[in-house]
Order: sequence, then structure tokens, then C-alpha cells
Amino acid sequence: MQTKTLAEWLTSNRLEDIPQDVRHEARRALLNFVGCAIGGCREAASDIAVRTVAPYSGPPTAAVLGRSEKLDPLRASLINGISSHVHDYDDTTPKNYIHPSAPTLSALFAYASTTPVSGAAFMHSFILGFEATSRIGNAVYPAHYDVGWHITGTAGVFGAAAGIGRLLNLPLQNMIWAIGLAATQAAGIREMFGSMGKALHPGRSAEAGYLAALLASNGFTSGIYGLEGPRGFAAVLAARSDLSKVTDRLGTDFDLRENTYKPYPCGIVIHPTIEACSILHDEHKFAPGDVSEVRLTVAPIVLDLCNKQRISVGLEGKFSVFHAAAIGLVRGRGGLREFTDEAVNDPDIKRIRELAVAKADRAIADDAVKVEVVLRDGRRLSFYNEHSIGNIARPMTDRQLEEKTLDQAGMVLPRSQVERLISKCWTIDDLDDCRTLIADAVPAG
Amino acid sequence: MQTKTLAEWLTSNRLEDIPQDVRHEARRALLNFVGCAIGGCREAASDIAVRTVAPYSGPPTAAVLGRSEKLDPLRASLINGISSHVHDYDDTTPKNYIHPSAPTLSALFAYASTTPVSGAAFMHSFILGFEATSRIGNAVYPAHYDVGWHITGTAGVFGAAAGIGRLLNLPLQNMIWAIGLAATQAAGIREMFGSMGKALHPGRSAEAGYLAALLASNGFTSGIYGLEGPRGFAAVLAARSDLSKVTDRLGTDFDLRENTYKPYPCGIVIHPTIEACSILHDEHKFAPGDVSEVRLTVAPIVLDLCNKQRISVGLEGKFSVFHAAAIGLVRGRGGLREFTDEAVNDPDIKRIRELAVAKADRAIADDAVKVEVVLRDGRRLSFYNEHSIGNIARPMTDRQLEEKTLDQAGMVLPRSQVERLISKCWTIDDLDDCRTLIADAVPAG
Repeated sequence: MQTKTLAEWLTSNRLEDIPQDVRHEARRALLNFVGCAIGGCREAASDIAVRTVAPYSGPPTAAVLGRSEKLDPLRASLINGISSHVHDYDDTTPKNYIHPSAPTLSALFAYASTTPVSGAAFMHSFILGFEATSRIGNAVYPAHYDVGWHITGTAGVFGAAAGIGRLLNLPLQNMIWAIGLAATQAAGIREMFGSMGKALHPGRSAEAGYLAALLASNGFTSGIYGLEGPRGFAAVLAARSDLSKVTDRLGTDFDLRENTYKPYPCGIVIHPTIEACSILHDEHKFAPGDVSEVRLTVAPIVLDLCNKQRISVGLEGKFSVFHAAAIGLVRGRGGLREFTDEAVNDPDIKRIRELAVAKADRAIADDAVKVEVVLRDGRRLSFYNEHSIGNIARPMTDRQLEEKTLDQAGMVLPRSQVERLISKCWTIDDLDDCRTLIADAVPAG
Repeated sequence: MQTKTLAEWLTSNRLEDIPQDVRHEARRALLNFVGCAIGGCREAASDIAVRTVAPYSGPPTAAVLGRSEKLDPLRASLINGISSHVHDYDDTTPKNYIHPSAPTLSALFAYASTTPVSGAAFMHSFILGFEATSRIGNAVYPAHYDVGWHITGTAGVFGAAAGIGRLLNLPLQNMIWAIGLAATQAAGIREMFGSMGKALHPGRSAEAGYLAALLASNGFTSGIYGLEGPRGFAAVLAARSDLSKVTDRLGTDFDLRENTYKPYPCGIVIHPTIEACSILHDEHKFAPGDVSEVRLTVAPIVLDLCNKQRISVGLEGKFSVFHAAAIGLVRGRGGLREFTDEAVNDPDIKRIRELAVAKADRAIADDAVKVEVVLRDGRRLSFYNEHSIGNIARPMTDRQLEEKTLDQAGMVLPRSQVERLISKCWTIDDLDDCRTLIADAVPAG
């Protein structure tokens, strides 16, 4: 009866029941999402998708984050989802590898840009959608992920359905149908990784979940055991599952508390290297030409996933621990600009990337690295990064999240506008109408 | 390399390469689809879906089969798909249990109602989409179906992508992406059976496949091994698969030759009983009150699937072999009107349904039945149906398909209009613009 129990919680939970620390974490996730969605909105995947769906869009009432076009709310959800994931820079719950915010918030922003929704109701719906996504993901992880599902795509559809369903005030029976109609639209395979298809997943989840809630609100029926039935989501999409994780300690434990934010727009396993090399760069002020040797000692998974050394395009840099070392040592940072084609072909970065060596060592944790650098003058520098920034053990601070958001959204919108937007994200619970915030998330005028 | 090989065929095949018997079978499938889509278009699932998506529809340029509303072509695809499957009356390829025509034709009709498409190009695209759907289904059947996928939903998305992709004249690279973007949207679980969610599947497949082709045409990239990659469709959605079935004898063997059409809108395993009882009814002219005993000897699967005897709503009748016997003996037929709430509660039908007895016998084939009836005057009637009509061994004739179409579409459109429509289905290859046909598939004026 997990579907019904979850639906009961989604329909009856009150915002007062959500602990304050969870509500703050939700605002951090909101801020991070907004930066990702605006920062990614001009990438080719988003441009192509807008160009493709605009002629099929209904009345353009909904905002598309970061962009001046408007679309109908379902199509706007699709684009918001693509933009927010295209840099692979959105939040992650390490226990199930879901990017949990994008599907739900992509739909909620589209909805709230067309209909008056208070900031408190918006955040409450987001929290419910986030928890639905992550808990359903927990139930099927790891078998589901290991076989090749992109769990952000599959679990995300439930979050959008739950969040929109709550904003629509669905009664229990209709919320059960919304979950069922979400379950039967769950999709997204990892074969798309490395293509635009990956970013399509949170977009499709947002739109499909939104549609599931709309259909259910109008009486479109589904099977009532969408999650736990013998031919339901868990049985069909996972060789092994534990559905008790959907409902155990529901309303007491919150997965939002285990959410993390990426300080660098690349594979999480090379984050420790970027940070360690950036620290050496800042501390020792050497020039790129001074570096003569670089030795990395990393966890074995790093070389499994990110062993590329001879690369030529920006996207490949996201999966190269050698590139991670080079950008840290040359630029002292690993922002979006360090994963462009230009950065990958920067002669200083290329030289250091290609002279670096790496060895795997089981004694090094996944979020750690040991870096040794030899300079031309014979100096030997080294740094051991025990837990890189952004992991649960060392979360990004609120201030660091603000800086990240400024970096991302600032590529698209004026800095002063982004600062207003950030301020409104922190105080969203006080807004009578989210459109006050959304106005600062799109180009002025 | 199945994705690439299939894409090469889809982009390079010429209509002249399709054998004439396959082209005729495609017209039979077209005719059957049109009857199903029009016949189902006023059911609650279609009504609710239209009401739900209309406010989100783009410019209403596309026809919705059987209905006077227009929608944008993507949303029209969705509704066509729901309408065509809502009666569970559309075609089936018994070797993989796919309803193969609905996803592809639902999308193609939406497209061709907005853009000039010759009848020959339309049918060619349909044949390509049908074969893509069925062949990909073959590759993952039965493991994929057995675990709980509704294979019409999952395999159908490829047909719509292939068919629309061909009409868009996608180059090879873009067709490969269209297949990948279809693969990553494949969804639909059997837990929805018995709810409106089941009919949603071909609708979502049609719309998702259409969108995949549009995105691919604009350069939205996907993984290029969508079918065969280590995290591709077959690996992720089936515990066992044989991808050689996608491409072996491609262009030589056609699954259209193994397509079947349902003479009755209910589970295929009770078709032999309806037919046998209808034959007894027609031959012996007894009144309902004359029947005192009914004994059925059926294949074991019939009682596994259709053992319901105490029923009260029309939908349950579709899964009751006793109801099947009763409607045959009382009305001599098993059309849509025999599966309404009214028919299930008809006192004559109810009496006979509840006095009938059935036993399973492994000597009876799945498409056979032995019926024995005792009348009040002591007469004993019996009939052994070796292969029921509609199975591959005894296909429905062209004339029977016409009658079925008249019965279905005639519930919605004037008989004279349906007769014109049927005539245009047979001669579609001669039409310069399919809109000549589509005009007769919607209400006049």
C-alpha cells in the first residue's frame, strides 16, 4: 500500500509539519536550481528544444527560466528541466545518485509563473516532490541504477506529479492516480550520457509528471498500485527493491538533509582534484610555465570513470582527472569557463594535463586526493584533500551557493538582477505570489 | 550496430521495395485503425484527455480522429492513440503481443492533417514504423513483456519516431538520434491494465516518438547506440534479448504479414467462445429463455485469464468467458454494445452467464473451444470451433474488416461518410494529399 500511504502524506501534510532545517535546505536547493536553470538556458540543447516545441506550444503564459520566450506551462517545464541539467551542475543525493530538484522545480516554476502561488505553498510542494522522488529512488536503488536507468529521469517524474498534484489540491484518489500515471511514464536510459539526451530526462520528467497530475485532476484513472503492484514501477524497473523505503519514517526523516551541491560542473569524483590544485595555485602563486611534474594519487573509481588525457572538446574535460588538475593549477578554479572547448585547448592547460600522471590507491577515499607538484626551480608542493568541498562531510556554505549562483546566472542576466533573485530565494516563504521572484529569473522587459 | 542498420533502412528504403501483399496488409491495418480511433474517440478517457490538454495545445491545426476539436499535432497524436486503444479492439501481432499500428498511425495522421503528404508516402512511412515497432518488440520479447512492460507503449514509440522521421526526410545521423530519443522515452507498465492508463500508452508513444523525430531533425543529439548499447533499450528494459531480430532479413520479412485484427472488443482468448455461440444462435434460432444448460470446454489459459462469472460492469465482461458464451447465445454477436454495463445487466444474458459452466482441457488449443448447449425441450446442440475468426489461421476478410469499421466508426459518424472513408482507405496510395481521406474521418463542417 505504499502508493496510497505516500499519496495520503502528499495530500495531508502541512507546512508546519516540516522541520525548519529541512525548509532551509529546500531554499538552498531552490537557489542552486535557479542558478543551474538560468546558467544552462542558452546551451544548444535548450535552444534546440525551444525552437522545436515553440510551434506546438499552447498560449505562451509560462516563463522559461533565464529566457525571454514564453511557452505553455507543460512545454516550459520541459525546457526548464533541460536547462537545469545541461551542465550536469545541479544537486545530487549521493545515496541514490538522483538529481532530485530539477524535475519537481522545473514543473513548479512553470505552474507558478501562470497562477498565483504563495512562496510558502510553492516551497511546501517542492519539499513534498523532492521527498517523493528521493524515497521512490531509494526503494529501487541500486539495482535500478546499475542496470542502466537514469534515475533522475525515472524517479523525477513522481516529484513533478506530487508537487503539481499538491498545488492542484488533488484529493487522495486523484493523487493515487497521479502517482500511477507518473509510474507509467517513467523513462530515461543511461545510454544517453554524453549527449543532449541526458538533459532531456529531467525535462521530460517535469512535463510528464505535470501532465499526470493534470490528467488525474480531471478523473483520468490509473492502476492504484502504481509503485508496489505486481506489474508496478518497482517490480518492472528494478530486479530488487525495498518499497518500505518509500514510507518508513515518512514525515520524520527527510532526504533533503542529505542533498549536496556541486562546486564544479563535472563528474563528482574529480572535484577533490580541482579543489586541491586550486588551493596549491592560490597558496604558492606559481605561473603555469613553472610546473614541471604533477602526480595525483586518487581513489580507484576516479580512473575508472575519468581517465581521459588526450582530449579536445569541453565536454570531455568533465571526465578527465588530468584536466581537473590542470585547470586548478593554471586558473585556480573550475567554473563553467574551465570546461569549454577554449579551456581544453588552452596551451598552458593542455601542457599540464598531458604531463600529469595519476595512480589509483585503495587507501584514498572517493572524495579525497593527494596531489604532488614539482616546479622548475626544484620546489616540491603537495596537498592532501581529505574531503572535497560539496560532499556531505563538507557542505557548501550558503555564501558559496550564492557565489555559484552568481557565477552561473550571471552569464545570462545582469549581476544586480541575480543578486535580487538570490535575496528573494532566501525569503521566498514570505512572498504572496512567486511571480515576484520569477520576474527576476527572466530577462527584464 | 542495430540502431544504425535500422536507421539506414528507414532512411533509404523505397516504396517500390515493399511487396504488394505487405502493402495490402498495411491498408487492412489502416482501415482497422481508423475504425478503432473513431469508434473510441467519445469514450471517457479520450474526453478527459482532450479536456486536459486543450488549454495547453498549440495552434489547433491537426485533426483529432472522429472529433470536431483540433489540436496541435503533438497533442492530436496523444488523443488519437488513446482513442484507438480504449476499446482494446485494435490490431495485434500475436508473436509479441504488440498493438503495432496505433502508435505510428496516431502520429502520422496528426502530421498528415497539417502538411501535404501523399497517400503513398503516408503508407510507406506507416509500413516502416510498423516494422520498426514489431522488430524491436521481437528483440526483447518475451522477457520484456513478462516482467510487466506494456510492450505497445515501449515498442510503439520507435514506430512513431521512425514514421515521422521518414516523413521529415531525416538524414541517417538524425534518424539514429530519433531512435535514441525514442528509446529514452520508452515507457508504460502493465499495472495500468483495467484503467484508462492502458490507453494512455499508445497515445504517449505516438506523441513521444513524434517529438523525438522533431528534436532529432533540429539537431538534438542522443546516444548513437540507443537499441544495443550497454545502457540502451534492450539491455535496460529486458533481462534477455536478441537484437539480431531487429535487423535479420530486414526488408525481406515483414511482420505486417503476421498482423491480426480482433473481431470482438475483448480478451482474445474468449473470441472462440463468442464465435461458436453466435454460430449456434444463428443456426438454431432458439430464444434466450430456451437455454437450460451451457457447457464450455476451453484451453487452460482461458480460465487463468477470464474466469469471472459474477460481474456487473461492462469492462468486466471483456474478461469473462461466461459472458462471452451468453452474448453469443442471446444476441448472436459480440460487438461494442455487448460489453456495456447495459449488456452485462441484461436479464437474459445474466441468467445464461451464471448458469454456464466451463472446464479446462489441455487438448483444446488456445484459439479453439467446444460448446454444448441443452435446450428446455431436451435438444442438445454442440459446436467445436477449431480456429476462431481473427487468428492468423483464419484471418478476417477484407469485407469483415469493413463491417467492423462500419460498426465502430458508425457509432460516431454517419454511415455514408464511413463508407466513403472505407473506400478511401483501400485507395489511399492514389491520393495526392491524405487530407482528402482525413476530411471523412472527422465530423463534417
